[in-house]
Amino acid sequence: MASNLQSSLRLRIPLRQLFLHTSVSSRTRFAPAALQSPLLTRCSPQASAPRRALHVGAATGHQSLPSSPPERLPFSRVTEEDLAFFRSILPGRTITDPDLLESSNVDWLKSVRGSAEVLLRPQTTEEVSQVLSYCNRRSLAVNPQGGNTGLVGGSVPVYDEIILSTALMNKIHSFDNVSGIVTCQAGCILENLSLYLEDRDYIMPLDLGAKGSCQIGGNVATNAGGLRLLRYGSLHGTVLGLEVVLADGRVLDCLSTLRKDNTGYDLKQLFIGSEGTLGVITAVSVLCPRKPKSVNVVFLGCETFQQLLKTFHLCRSMLGEILSAFEFLDSECVRLLNTHLRLSNPISDCPFYIVIETSGSDPTHDSEKLHNFLEEAMASAFVLDGTVATEDSKIKALWSMRERVTEALTHDGFTYKYDISLPVERIYQLVTDMREHLGDRAKSVVGYGHVGDGNLHLNITSPEKNPELLAAIEPFVYEWTSRFQGSISAEHGLGLKKRNYIHYSKSSQAVALMGSIKTMLDPKGILNPYKTLPDNLK
Amino acid sequence: MASNLQSSLRLRIPLRQLFLHTSVSSRTRFAPAALQSPLLTRCSPQASAPRRALHVGAATGHQSLPSSPPERLPFSRVTEEDLAFFRSILPGRTITDPDLLESSNVDWLKSVRGSAEVLLRPQTTEEVSQVLSYCNRRSLAVNPQGGNTGLVGGSVPVYDEIILSTALMNKIHSFDNVSGIVTCQAGCILENLSLYLEDRDYIMPLDLGAKGSCQIGGNVATNAGGLRLLRYGSLHGTVLGLEVVLADGRVLDCLSTLRKDNTGYDLKQLFIGSEGTLGVITAVSVLCPRKPKSVNVVFLGCETFQQLLKTFHLCRSMLGEILSAFEFLDSECVRLLNTHLRLSNPISDCPFYIVIETSGSDPTHDSEKLHNFLEEAMASAFVLDGTVATEDSKIKALWSMRERVTEALTHDGFTYKYDISLPVERIYQLVTDMREHLGDRAKSVVGYGHVGDGNLHLNITSPEKNPELLAAIEPFVYEWTSRFQGSISAEHGLGLKKRNYIHYSKSSQAVALMGSIKTMLDPKGILNPYKTLPDNLK
Repeated sequence: MASNLQSSLRLRIPLRQLFLHTSVSSRTRFAPAALQSPLLTRCSPQASAPRRALHVGAATGHQSLPSSPPERLPFSRVTEEDLAFFRSILPGRTITDPDLLESSNVDWLKSVRGSAEVLLRPQTTEEVSQVLSYCNRRSLAVNPQGGNTGLVGGSVPVYDEIILSTALMNKIHSFDNVSGIVTCQAGCILENLSLYLEDRDYIMPLDLGAKGSCQIGGNVATNAGGLRLLRYGSLHGTVLGLEVVLADGRVLDCLSTLRKDNTGYDLKQLFIGSEGTLGVITAVSVLCPRKPKSVNVVFLGCETFQQLLKTFHLCRSMLGEILSAFEFLDSECVRLLNTHLRLSNPISDCPFYIVIETSGSDPTHDSEKLHNFLEEAMASAFVLDGTVATEDSKIKALWSMRERVTEALTHDGFTYKYDISLPVERIYQLVTDMREHLGDRAKSVVGYGHVGDGNLHLNITSPEKNPELLAAIEPFVYEWTSRFQGSISAEHGLGLKKRNYIHYSKSSQAVALMGSIKTMLDPKGILNPYKTLPDNLK
Repeated sequence: MASNLQSSLRLRIPLRQLFLHTSVSSRTRFAPAALQSPLLTRCSPQASAPRRALHVGAATGHQSLPSSPPERLPFSRVTEEDLAFFRSILPGRTITDPDLLESSNVDWLKSVRGSAEVLLRPQTTEEVSQVLSYCNRRSLAVNPQGGNTGLVGGSVPVYDEIILSTALMNKIHSFDNVSGIVTCQAGCILENLSLYLEDRDYIMPLDLGAKGSCQIGGNVATNAGGLRLLRYGSLHGTVLGLEVVLADGRVLDCLSTLRKDNTGYDLKQLFIGSEGTLGVITAVSVLCPRKPKSVNVVFLGCETFQQLLKTFHLCRSMLGEILSAFEFLDSECVRLLNTHLRLSNPISDCPFYIVIETSGSDPTHDSEKLHNFLEEAMASAFVLDGTVATEDSKIKALWSMRERVTEALTHDGFTYKYDISLPVERIYQLVTDMREHLGDRAKSVVGYGHVGDGNLHLNITSPEKNPELLAAIEPFVYEWTSRFQGSISAEHGLGLKKRNYIHYSKSSQAVALMGSIKTMLDPKGILNPYKTLPDNLK
């Protein structure tokens, strides 16, 4: 069995190149979502020949695509001796059954697939350290994995990288009821942490749609944004400490539980948003806000995006410290919600809609503030219509108008998804320009997102996958974003899919420095290879 | 004149070693404040001989002290050719007049002094780049300097480092009234930025006692904390972008004005709190909160520190989103305020006092919240007495009870100052333990600081400088702090004075990684040498 397995490991071939390089003209660029394909099936030895042939893109006339993976780097391949070592330190937690590996090899969008043959499930930092120390010596590539809810192909292997899952590292170490600081292992699921804290009258400073499966270590590794960022700020401010295992197995203990510590460089910051390429986060400490005693949600309609922005300005002034979300969606989103999910618009039809949430410590004060704001917004004619919810069920119903847009889009057709940061006054102009640019080539062009954070989710649908449409979208969308000093990835990260687009948002000096940092911390490049950094770095 | 100057540059000797190495037994450690000395006079050629003799500490039986500078590193010395170059790019802004250099060579505590012969005052990033590129080629050490208000000897040269002042880089580039994002040069004085923003209905997210002279670039370089951190968080969250000139003159443009940007590593974070050792910050963008419409201040008295903590807990719950400061001082502080500054206690005598500030968008709501909180605090007997201020003059009077403690201490005697971060429930225990530990060897042992941030300012006075007292304080204070996972520098940084104490708060792995980062970014070590990193790093 041992030799069979080894042989199998050597023969299994990642197939991504196959579908990435077929049927694409040299001028076509792939959008991240274009990685989705009916050809996305489990790798088999038979795929070996075409893969090699297609890999030499230039020789066959195919140009390498920015979102497609580069050649497999010359990492070692897992041997039976390696497995024996892993089993010795992780007995029963060294997984090689292909069926059990399946869900860890594919991202949740089912858009990318790796062909890892080994999944390791450590429970302690010491075990992670032993694994990485060994892999580094052996030049075995490693794909750190949390809840595998990422959107840019960063959380699954590209080839046969060993999957190092933090799923069993789910202990809460401590919670300080005075300071509101929680310390826990990286594999704690966000929703579990939230429930734990709510019992203690606190909340997590971040909230995501994927909270039921995403893990706090992965959240930190991707610098997740989400719905509460407007109020509580980014993880760069709320994460107080990290414990990280470096590529060579050294444990970097920066697991401070202090709000202030100016003794030297703030090393933990390097790992927040580094997508597992600089180290494996094994524990975190987070500063948590008190649970609000009062929550209100308002759904409003505006005639123009300019009026929506005026409403935002007024809202910041009049709701002040209780404003916790200011989200928007356009009429196209509402049409899709209605068509595909039978969600009806709770107010009269308008070109733009706003979801405002307040969270405060005094229900009477909050509703008074909200009332005053709404009166002023209506009197100024910024807002055409609106409805307010204070009960949980109605709050959920209003939030679903914003939160279920993604789901409605999946019913509308093949979706090209973009997550763009822009100066707030520009965010809808990109949607308008894109709509005009594409004309009737797209089925739907919709915009929604976090106005308060200047974060637009631009989505374009087509009856089916359409390389010509994609070629019309990209690089148009990135060039447009770059022209206004925006970010081509506001909160999703770069991962595999967007790594080669980094230059649209970062200077070459900055990218070069990122490369130096990667080399310094992971000289053999074993951690999450093919991700975050562009291929042409070295 | 040229050759005189050159000769003078070569002969002028930094004198710090002289007074640092005299009259100190081998077991004595110097506190930062011990660098203060009547011997601190301007350097003169005559000092040359004793300095050389005293430098070889081991040979003369003197042990090197953790806070004293190491030997001058083998940087080049400024020549007439160098000056000619500087004058060519900074005509009229290359200062060599010793009288004009005086205030830049001495820190504002008058505790450390350098002997720079050249002060450069660039106005643009390009000029900074040209200067550093040249200095790096020539191996000339550079001391970046903002408002020179630092407390740990980080802002002045140690030997003859060229002072690179950002004082003339004081332009505000832009302010976005919708997002509240300001972008400006590094030399903008904090108070000027505050006034500029207040005119536009915004405030800076940080406020410091030194705001009249400190500069935003220096604030970011030291990761300044201050009075608003409790509410608006640290600069790691509120600074959105930085422009930094690296040691070799390369300009690193990370001057984003986006709230969200997950395209690669967040490089700017490296420079926040790096005390000018990794690069010179030339421009910043900051996310600013709206100006509050209502501010209240309360002064309360408690019987025990435990009751003070209960009051803090209640306050966080009942004041919630409007709480903007929770500061404390002990009865010893109030005694000193009364004795030395004739400030009288506005309430009845208590062992502990609290200053609470609220900032909100609705005066009626805020005062109602405050009233309810105070009723509950009194009813629960957490608080013995108190007074509330809503008018500006009374607000200022109450704040002065907290803000003028430092001044009162200077009248009490020679002061040994410590800035400690601890789990909030521990912060006063250090004062009690220190008082017991020192007995009648100290004149006064007082504690005050930012309860909300877990940040204690521990101050110990003595009729005059007292090495025996110092030996009793250190390393006791650092060992105590380390035992409870505290930070030996909460907000002041390490600078020159505390660099060798870094191991009390950071692991050796972390310190080694800091060294690697320094080497990567500044291989010749020209930027702010002798600061932040410990001497034994390499």
